[in-house]
Amino acid sequence: MQRIYFNDVVTRDGFQIEPEFVPTESKVALVDALSRCGYAKVEVTSFTSAKSIPMLRDAEEVMGRIQRVPGVEYTVLVPNVRGAERALESKADEFNLVMSTSETHNLANLRMPRERSFAALKEVVALAEGRVPVNVSLSACFGCPMEGLVPADVVIAWSDRFAELGVRGLTICDTTGMAHPSQVSRLCETLRKRFPGLQLTLHFHNTRGMGLANVLAAAQQGIDRFDGSLGGLGGCPYAPGASGNICSEDAIHMLQAEGYETGIDLTRLLAVARQLPDIVGHDVPGQVAKAGRILDLHPEPDFVADIRSKFA
Amino acid sequence: MQRIYFNDVVTRDGFQIEPEFVPTESKVALVDALSRCGYAKVEVTSFTSAKSIPMLRDAEEVMGRIQRVPGVEYTVLVPNVRGAERALESKADEFNLVMSTSETHNLANLRMPRERSFAALKEVVALAEGRVPVNVSLSACFGCPMEGLVPADVVIAWSDRFAELGVRGLTICDTTGMAHPSQVSRLCETLRKRFPGLQLTLHFHNTRGMGLANVLAAAQQGIDRFDGSLGGLGGCPYAPGASGNICSEDAIHMLQAEGYETGIDLTRLLAVARQLPDIVGHDVPGQVAKAGRILDLHPEPDFVADIRSKFA
Repeated sequence: MQRIYFNDVVTRDGFQIEPEFVPTESKVALVDALSRCGYAKVEVTSFTSAKSIPMLRDAEEVMGRIQRVPGVEYTVLVPNVRGAERALESKADEFNLVMSTSETHNLANLRMPRERSFAALKEVVALAEGRVPVNVSLSACFGCPMEGLVPADVVIAWSDRFAELGVRGLTICDTTGMAHPSQVSRLCETLRKRFPGLQLTLHFHNTRGMGLANVLAAAQQGIDRFDGSLGGLGGCPYAPGASGNICSEDAIHMLQAEGYETGIDLTRLLAVARQLPDIVGHDVPGQVAKAGRILDLHPEPDFVADIRSKFA
Repeated sequence: MQRIYFNDVVTRDGFQIEPEFVPTESKVALVDALSRCGYAKVEVTSFTSAKSIPMLRDAEEVMGRIQRVPGVEYTVLVPNVRGAERALESKADEFNLVMSTSETHNLANLRMPRERSFAALKEVVALAEGRVPVNVSLSACFGCPMEGLVPADVVIAWSDRFAELGVRGLTICDTTGMAHPSQVSRLCETLRKRFPGLQLTLHFHNTRGMGLANVLAAAQQGIDRFDGSLGGLGGCPYAPGASGNICSEDAIHMLQAEGYETGIDLTRLLAVARQLPDIVGHDVPGQVAKAGRILDLHPEPDFVADIRSKFA
């Protein structure tokens, strides 16, 4: 059985775009609940400025109050050296840095050219050296909503540059749900061959319904790390009404059915997922929390016994 | 390029469980719109009794008013000989018969044991002989929400019996969204080898988020016929709030991205799909109608030009 390592990004990637501030207490309780489900990693929060992401303005307090479970890594998004200093003070287990492989997407999202982002992140990697492992999330690796297809060579070139800086891992992000399975297979095969020593994580969105098909395509290429968001929370500003991040529990449910070892206690995870609509105050896209697992059976309706005896 | 033949079941499988009656005129207009999108088949309606499925009580009128496009087959659900006579009068191009591979599901859904269903459908096949081709949709082929896993041998045994009756095709239905991709691969491989002369169609639900992954698994085994429902309309009484049928346009969008030839004009189909929420009066699960196709690009935000020049 292939082991899969799952990272839940709901309290960072999901909550950052919620219309209502999720209370600090709810965030802490949710991270603590996820910690007991068997995740390899939880992306707790972001050390961006409170002005740019007001929903995550309580990053220090959340990091200070969560109960850390041995074996779970608590990662945080770090945009720059100032954020890295805050993350170090908060004893984050990993820095997750972000930039886009698409110039236009980087300009729109991070308000600077890619080279400027790279230079800033290089400083963060230097600061982290010997203190905390670094992961780099590369956005828009399968397509940019403004530029279109992002060639694999561009993804590989940026991956090379971060690999040379000595980062521990790379997350290949399909930020706006543009990937399709055979494209995923090809890129994963290429990246696994090129970076055998790096932790490679795939981050998919379900914007066009292909999220789980893409997870499977990646897993079949030997990818063993995935991001997901509880309930499928999160979104895409370019696709109003469409789904955002893949739903962690739906992806884990599929991978377990397919015979992968996820380390996740799915019964426990579904119980947590079923609390999410109350936490955020609205329905969420996740399916398995509503439908139950494949073999969560239903009692037969009462009238079936009558029909049985009628035809006996 | 592998050719895929698509059958839209929205006006039958989708509309039959809508809470509000969809006006006959809307049904006719929708079938006519779908006819111009490149479908191989449209499942127009059901010749069940008006009492059992009141939403489709206008079956004759719909069949009489649609504009038939050459090359498109107009199929109808036929439950028994009485329905078959009505379907013949309405000049249906195909009879689609239904029974379940699970005894409990058949009792709950059709109110009789499987053997009784088989005997009734055998009469319909005899009536149709030499007049109209017959397809049999076998429900719950990957699992029954009350019995659990349905063994492949059971599916094969029922398939054998209908093949011996001389039906043209079989639709293998994952009625409550319990299939997972490797299970789909295995069953499709077995069925294709066993029934090289039959039209084999796969009918998936997205109840647990795996619908498109299952479509892809089947297509990779050479399955070239799929059911889908515009907008993902339809549902599952065992999973309130969860998705029902796979969304036709999302599945077609994925298959086209993967390089399959679907014969569908997706631009036209998405325009039809975007009218569906108005027809039924509520949001529908389909994603691509909301998000656009992978390469439907967005203009860059105005501020991006300023950032470009700032860093130039």
